[in-house]
Amino acid sequence: MEMVCLDLEGVLVPEIWITFADKVGIAELRLTTRDIPDYDELMQHRLAILRQYRIGLSDIRQVIRQIDPMPGAVDFLDELRAETQAVILSDTFVQFAGPLMEKLNRPTLFCNELLVNGNDQIGGYRLRQPDGKRHAVQAFRSLNMRVTAIGDSYNDLSMIRTADAGALFRPPARITEEHPDLPVFHEYNELLRFLLLPLASQHS
Amino acid sequence: MEMVCLDLEGVLVPEIWITFADKVGIAELRLTTRDIPDYDELMQHRLAILRQYRIGLSDIRQVIRQIDPMPGAVDFLDELRAETQAVILSDTFVQFAGPLMEKLNRPTLFCNELLVNGNDQIGGYRLRQPDGKRHAVQAFRSLNMRVTAIGDSYNDLSMIRTADAGALFRPPARITEEHPDLPVFHEYNELLRFLLLPLASQHS
Repeated sequence: MEMVCLDLEGVLVPEIWITFADKVGIAELRLTTRDIPDYDELMQHRLAILRQYRIGLSDIRQVIRQIDPMPGAVDFLDELRAETQAVILSDTFVQFAGPLMEKLNRPTLFCNELLVNGNDQIGGYRLRQPDGKRHAVQAFRSLNMRVTAIGDSYNDLSMIRTADAGALFRPPARITEEHPDLPVFHEYNELLRFLLLPLASQHS
Repeated sequence: MEMVCLDLEGVLVPEIWITFADKVGIAELRLTTRDIPDYDELMQHRLAILRQYRIGLSDIRQVIRQIDPMPGAVDFLDELRAETQAVILSDTFVQFAGPLMEKLNRPTLFCNELLVNGNDQIGGYRLRQPDGKRHAVQAFRSLNMRVTAIGDSYNDLSMIRTADAGALFRPPARITEEHPDLPVFHEYNELLRFLLLPLASQHS
């Protein structure tokens, strides 16, 4: 049985923090794992800025509700899920993901959780586990699934390298240069063809 | 993060083999794991009957396309997936599941595969792994998810016992008697309340 593991931000929806930063006009919130590969360092930076500007979870949620999946992403995911199994592995938080998952027709999502206090303030976050994307791919493989992983960023490389197959979707040039052996796709129809190829030989 | 693991047949859709047996009028195909707990014994029995009556995969698929989810199942699953993650763990086959998954709005499905030859004849089947439902629950727990498992039949007991919490949905009286400690639900609204209860304390 085939399982496709997809990163969320940059692959199916825009980067949530960047979109939020632009809407509220705080340039320091534009950094992502593309800029700071260490995720905890990045998150502590973000949380400090939120505290400084007194921005609560509900403020962020209001912006997220206005974010749409990338053009073509909904059709891509629908077509993929009509033919095989696909799960989204993300470093985002359940509190952010809801409205985006609804727009993507509710694929299964493995992600993290924010720790929110009674005053709507984000006090911290809880990673489900360190390197959670890689562990998820390993878990699927332990269930005798053939896993293909797709991502765009540094935090996707360990899951891509652990999967049976993998590719980059619209990565920054630096990652493409550092990992010349990985297939790179820029359009959903190309990516869909790559993902459905292993199925063609199995199902008549 | 919470993960709900749901059995398919008997919980969300009618028993596929029973429905097929009734439509084609072959009573011997009505047996399920409720009757023969040993799954391989049951499957060899089914495949022998199909060979005897010269019934191909396309014949079975035609009947499956006419099967609807149980009344209330689509709304139940939609409401559940709006609040938490849910995956279907089934002993059915990818070749059977497609039309039913579409009617259920494409939840993620872990299941098995039929081995079909060029003549549309089902020659055998491939279990993803023995006791696959239990292994899937263990894998989710290894990813630091809190797993609740719901089933109706003998082949669901190991996943229910391995999960952090579990319950029976519309089980036969015999299973209820043999497992008096397990919660039993007969209506989707009761089951939904049971499944969403752990979330109420976490998300404000």
